[in-house]
Amino acid sequence: MRFLSDNAATVHPQVWQAMRDADVVDTPYDGDAVSSRLDDAFGAVFGREVTVVWVATGTAANCLALSAMVPPHGGVVCHREAHIEMDEGGAPGFYLHGAKLMLAEGEGAKVSPEEISTVIDPIRDDVHQVQPHAISITQASEYGRAYRPQELAAIGALAKERGLGLHVDGARFANAAAFLECSPAEAVGPAQALSFGCVKNGAMNAEAIVFFEPELADLVRYRRKRSGHLQSKGRFLAAQLLAMLDQDLWLANARAANAAAQAIVAEASERLMHPVEANEVFMRLTGPEREALRKQGFDFYDWGEDAARFVAAWDSDQSAAQALGQAIANL
Amino acid sequence: MRFLSDNAATVHPQVWQAMRDADVVDTPYDGDAVSSRLDDAFGAVFGREVTVVWVATGTAANCLALSAMVPPHGGVVCHREAHIEMDEGGAPGFYLHGAKLMLAEGEGAKVSPEEISTVIDPIRDDVHQVQPHAISITQASEYGRAYRPQELAAIGALAKERGLGLHVDGARFANAAAFLECSPAEAVGPAQALSFGCVKNGAMNAEAIVFFEPELADLVRYRRKRSGHLQSKGRFLAAQLLAMLDQDLWLANARAANAAAQAIVAEASERLMHPVEANEVFMRLTGPEREALRKQGFDFYDWGEDAARFVAAWDSDQSAAQALGQAIANL
Amino acid sequence: MRFLSDNAATVHPQVWQAMRDADVVDTPYDGDAVSSRLDDAFGAVFGREVTVVWVATGTAANCLALSAMVPPHGGVVCHREAHIEMDEGGAPGFYLHGAKLMLAEGEGAKVSPEEISTVIDPIRDDVHQVQPHAISITQASEYGRAYRPQELAAIGALAKERGLGLHVDGARFANAAAFLECSPAEAVGPAQALSFGCVKNGAMNAEAIVFFEPELADLVRYRRKRSGHLQSKGRFLAAQLLAMLDQDLWLANARAANAAAQAIVAEASERLMHPVEANEVFMRLTGPEREALRKQGFDFYDWGEDAARFVAAWDSDQSAAQALGQAIANL
Amino acid sequence: MRFLSDNAATVHPQVWQAMRDADVVDTPYDGDAVSSRLDDAFGAVFGREVTVVWVATGTAANCLALSAMVPPHGGVVCHREAHIEMDEGGAPGFYLHGAKLMLAEGEGAKVSPEEISTVIDPIRDDVHQVQPHAISITQASEYGRAYRPQELAAIGALAKERGLGLHVDGARFANAAAFLECSPAEAVGPAQALSFGCVKNGAMNAEAIVFFEPELADLVRYRRKRSGHLQSKGRFLAAQLLAMLDQDLWLANARAANAAAQAIVAEASERLMHPVEANEVFMRLTGPEREALRKQGFDFYDWGEDAARFVAAWDSDQSAAQALGQAIANL
Repeated sequence: MRFLSDNAATVHPQVWQAMRDADVVDTPYDGDAVSSRLDDAFGAVFGREVTVVWVATGTAANCLALSAMVPPHGGVVCHREAHIEMDEGGAPGFYLHGAKLMLAEGEGAKVSPEEISTVIDPIRDDVHQVQPHAISITQASEYGRAYRPQELAAIGALAKERGLGLHVDGARFANAAAFLECSPAEAVGPAQALSFGCVKNGAMNAEAIVFFEPELADLVRYRRKRSGHLQSKGRFLAAQLLAMLDQDLWLANARAANAAAQAIVAEASERLMHPVEANEVFMRLTGPEREALRKQGFDFYDWGEDAARFVAAWDSDQSAAQALGQAIANL
Repeated sequence: MRFLSDNAATVHPQVWQAMRDADVVDTPYDGDAVSSRLDDAFGAVFGREVTVVWVATGTAANCLALSAMVPPHGGVVCHREAHIEMDEGGAPGFYLHGAKLMLAEGEGAKVSPEEISTVIDPIRDDVHQVQPHAISITQASEYGRAYRPQELAAIGALAKERGLGLHVDGARFANAAAFLECSPAEAVGPAQALSFGCVKNGAMNAEAIVFFEPELADLVRYRRKRSGHLQSKGRFLAAQLLAMLDQDLWLANARAANAAAQAIVAEASERLMHPVEANEVFMRLTGPEREALRKQGFDFYDWGEDAARFVAAWDSDQSAAQALGQAIANL
Repeated sequence: MRFLSDNAATVHPQVWQAMRDADVVDTPYDGDAVSSRLDDAFGAVFGREVTVVWVATGTAANCLALSAMVPPHGGVVCHREAHIEMDEGGAPGFYLHGAKLMLAEGEGAKVSPEEISTVIDPIRDDVHQVQPHAISITQASEYGRAYRPQELAAIGALAKERGLGLHVDGARFANAAAFLECSPAEAVGPAQALSFGCVKNGAMNAEAIVFFEPELADLVRYRRKRSGHLQSKGRFLAAQLLAMLDQDLWLANARAANAAAQAIVAEASERLMHPVEANEVFMRLTGPEREALRKQGFDFYDWGEDAARFVAAWDSDQSAAQALGQAIANL
Repeated sequence: MRFLSDNAATVHPQVWQAMRDADVVDTPYDGDAVSSRLDDAFGAVFGREVTVVWVATGTAANCLALSAMVPPHGGVVCHREAHIEMDEGGAPGFYLHGAKLMLAEGEGAKVSPEEISTVIDPIRDDVHQVQPHAISITQASEYGRAYRPQELAAIGALAKERGLGLHVDGARFANAAAFLECSPAEAVGPAQALSFGCVKNGAMNAEAIVFFEPELADLVRYRRKRSGHLQSKGRFLAAQLLAMLDQDLWLANARAANAAAQAIVAEASERLMHPVEANEVFMRLTGPEREALRKQGFDFYDWGEDAARFVAAWDSDQSAAQALGQAIANL
């Protein structure tokens, strides 16, 4: 009964099937028939023209997207606990050639226009200080919190006012969209680029960078090759992405994961550190309590001294999730 | 009847099976059971201890390997038509932070110690000129030529004498090893790192960087994450690599591709631009001749004005290859 | 009566004279007679063998020194208000190829071993998080505070224990050394490299990077050329540095600046935000108070809403400093 | 009697005087009164609006200028023996974040539109190959050859047609302009940026980057700070530049150097390897001949096995130059 990470989950059967179907001789790189269908497929999801670039990892997706918005001498505002700051091994520094992450505060790893302003307002407009060029937010956030459409609109308005790009790290975008019950377009807001995550949601190793401004994609295609992310048999990545969109599998999978997370919470919500708006559950649990749960067969990560993180995936067993929830309630 | 590129070939059934078998919940990144078997499996192939790092593409393999040998202010000697110079979209400049490729001549895209010396001897040992730190050669070369063990030994001796690292781009290492009929260890020579190619040889999207000096691998693990190449479900890459090694599938596949290439050549060797020592065939063919072949259903790339490149793959149809050879002979 | 910045001060007559004396035809770059004397001259100051590399600016000195200690995938711990973080336009990101600054707290812009540990202890030893490779401290700090020899020893011990390099940004090292009344060696502590500032202390455009480990200098010579900082007429930089050392002009100038700072403080120490241990004075002063001072002819920078920064230089007029101090007392 | 390098020459008295005059307390960096006069002063020289950024070295000037024209994934076409390729320690790789130099042939280190086309025409317009973004030429070339106005116009037309930037490395622009006897505007042609060299022509350590498109300068100001080239007492650089322009000192100095070079040539022109159009003389001279000259007190560099390079400077003694010319004739 593993609630360690959605990264560890299995691959969805429909993804497997799509990959098998893609195993025909075709043009290498992204010249194949499957890749050519991506723009339209994602365009249908977002209700507008988009340009899509596939890559194998979320780190590559985030950093390539930002590399099209931020010059080497610029900066990106993000939350202090954003994945790009905490868990990408310095990839933004690599892809952005030394550009700077500018760290904002914010509850639940979400930032508000006020918190962004607190970071950028004191920056003198001179060459001695790195100037911000973009904002990157995570939907759902690193603590499983979802930005509401009006929050996204407000951040977008600030970005526009200050001439900043807006990027959304959507490693768990599906979970946020499923939770919000709004349209995908509303769930991403006025961003220029979205890292549309699939690996945590039933795919094997394919993520989509969805560009709402096509000229950014034109740049990123060069950067993708230059970073070694242009796979020669790209059709196997494109196939995964199409399978995720087909009949909204992405939303179905996310709903399943979100539901499992809610099942964990159901009877122990007083322990929550953050409201559960996606598939991650952060709970106050003492060391002995965590040990007791592990003895009952539940796997999860400690979160500091007195807490634990449980992550549900698309393939989490609902009864296992309920059992975990009950076990916590019984502590 | 496609002889465009081994990049376009299908995935071998044993690779598919290994990937399916790997579809269990396991530790993410490279902490899984499959990844943990790589060092031993490749060690058995090369008859010595090695450390193996998987990545999805040959460009990433080459550039990550070199990044551990060459500081940003250094240089890499390679052939003027090396893949890293011609076809990686500037990835060496990215991964090596601006280090310089130093271009050597050499027949068939192979370099000799003399040709390497012609490049590095005139470099003044001062700070005004970029100093070489490594040599990168391609086995088999970009024109399908194989370095003999004694040639590799001579280059290795030069590298050692000058204090240079030695990297082998083995995108088609299997084809070279199959052709040479020597041990894999002899086919790579005294290199510090080998990009062991699988994608052109029946895998989907996994390459192995084989390090013969483990401390280089320690560095590259950080660089792999930093470049977004550490996949969270790395077990699917490791599984491909193990499948390739299992019962020497890699050699069997390469022999099949090499044989198809020889079948193309069999009756038209007088047209060859380079001896065929791997799975690539470069032939002098006029425009009308190429058109005639295409009308008969053969797909391939033009190679300049008066030549063509045919590439056989593990899954090339031998009778199609023979038919192509016959068609050329009949021109 | 300008107390805006020591950057704006004039050039000391002895520096001018040394530059004039250096205006003879000599070997370009750093092969000249004047440059060749630097190692011995600085070695005498620090009582040990050192290797010295001249550059024109403190930013170049800091970043080149760090570039020899920190790989592109690594990090540097520094204070949140360190010059390299706040005022170098992202130069560390450029020179360190995307390495990360890791920001520590600390009163008066000084960091302690405890505050450094607070930053680095939570870093998981895995590839997902940037690993620290060096510590950079500023002597005197950005708020004019001097590290005591025992504080430097403690930081050095931590650095050694953790395998980290130690760099000292000594843009105002002379002021710290003059204040501490200890030997220069004690004032720098167990660092590998010191940016020995001269421009704020009477030179025109020359700083010394003093390496206590010569192999770092060997690397930096390549990096200096590569960054365009190897001036062809380097003798004019070397001459400035030698003039600063000659008969301890550097200490005499720093004492003059420090004394002027103390004169400002003398009768208004209750307004101080930080003890004055160098040539910078930070004082709480309301907007109307600042206006009143400016009306009396004193120039200085505001420091946020309710404070001001006064910087004394080697050529500050002592009576002007006293007058300023009196004017503040009279407010 | 030194003809080693114009880098080794002395500083012109008028430059010294201007520096002394600039030794007043003023705003640091480039906010001073002297720096503020640069745009107008250079604008008068070129007969159009320009924006000028000072730096201390030619390497910094060249690479900063190019950094505003070329993205990290792009390339710069230059001559195979261009200074940026041969003698800047890899600085273009650093400043352009790994962008590629694309090497063209051309007599006398000059390139023609045809030779540029030979380099860029074969580049496939796809992401696998680095795309050119700029052309950099050297006026006068590394072999002392001057581009004629019509040659510059032709290169500019090609650049415009292909959407490429055009940069002129004018380390010896003064010598070229003096030789050509055309207007400075004609001598630079339709470039976007010119590295206007002064250090080889009587200045101490100041070069001007002259931008004919002001938005490039806006970018470069950030890059200059980020590379540590924004000196705090910038007035001393600006003063050198103004002194060079004052009453066309730059042309007078260049004429003197050119005349000395012609004096060397006068009676031995049959030995020339390249026509002398600036202040450099390349001559076929055997080892014994060179030894004989050195015994007579002439200093110069060998140029390969059977040649020598003599460089005259603004302060070269005309009679020494004549004596050298006579000595060569007497060999």
